[in-house]
Amino acid sequence: MADEMGAAEERKILVAVDESEESMHALSWCLKNVLVSNNPSKDTLILLYVKPPRVVYSSLDGTGYLLSSDIMATMQKYSNDIADCVIEKAKRMCREQVQDVKVETIIEHGDARDLICQAAEKLHADMLVMGSHGYGLIKRAFLGSVSNHCAQNVKCPVLIVKRPKSNSGSK
Amino acid sequence: MADEMGAAEERKILVAVDESEESMHALSWCLKNVLVSNNPSKDTLILLYVKPPRVVYSSLDGTGYLLSSDIMATMQKYSNDIADCVIEKAKRMCREQVQDVKVETIIEHGDARDLICQAAEKLHADMLVMGSHGYGLIKRAFLGSVSNHCAQNVKCPVLIVKRPKSNSGSK
Repeated sequence: MADEMGAAEERKILVAVDESEESMHALSWCLKNVLVSNNPSKDTLILLYVKPPRVVYSSLDGTGYLLSSDIMATMQKYSNDIADCVIEKAKRMCREQVQDVKVETIIEHGDARDLICQAAEKLHADMLVMGSHGYGLIKRAFLGSVSNHCAQNVKCPVLIVKRPKSNSGSK
Repeated sequence: MADEMGAAEERKILVAVDESEESMHALSWCLKNVLVSNNPSKDTLILLYVKPPRVVYSSLDGTGYLLSSDIMATMQKYSNDIADCVIEKAKRMCREQVQDVKVETIIEHGDARDLICQAAEKLHADMLVMGSHGYGLIKRAFLGSVSNHCAQNVKCPVLIVKRPKSNSGSK
């Protein structure tokens, strides 16, 4: 009976977060519309942040010379700082909006499209939540939308949340 | 406070249904994971079925001759019967899985990709739920996936639910 009602099942909800406002909105929307009142203590929220692959830094140097190790180290640190900052912000949002929800965090390194899909499979996620993109406009034009790729390739249900209406409405 | 908790807000959840098993699974998943226990009486579920446009019937006659009005009428009736059958099945599923949820139904006629997007906007839906496709394999190859199109063009959050694991696992 409990199973039929769906409320007693434990769910793993994977939320792909990045530095975009849209991604935080997706998390917030999920907390409010999927978790809250659906017995949140039964849910585990897994926050996944994917750092860009190192090749992105190298390609910044268009001269063909390798970047010095100093610059690489600085960029590496910068990338780690952003990851920590995004994860902290996301965790704070979870604590503020929902009590008693279990939150886990994962930081990966590489192509967001592949790593989000792999994480969903590996974790046996019951649902993947994400903003409608995760790349900037230019990279998106070449690589396609991250959310499209994930919606096509992930087996579990995928919830794609666009940026808040207030922003899109003002454009 | 109620607003902050998200539980007191009325939501319009648009579910695109069709004759596929995947579409019914998407509805069932939504009832279980999004509606149940989230104060379902606050939610209105809007079931949308889109009948294929008439040009689909005409194109069945590859000889270039127009189909007779008898055949057209038969096909029209067949199409209406399928629509009624799908909508009835979906309504029954809602009644069986969730008590106190308000259910409305809409039957449209035309291109599912456009009509689902238009309905989401017109109804100011808070969420669109659908299976991962809505066309058969061949039409999908030419027209692209309905869910992809909607995920890209609808402003509200889109939940895409794949066919049940038991089915995909056995293939």
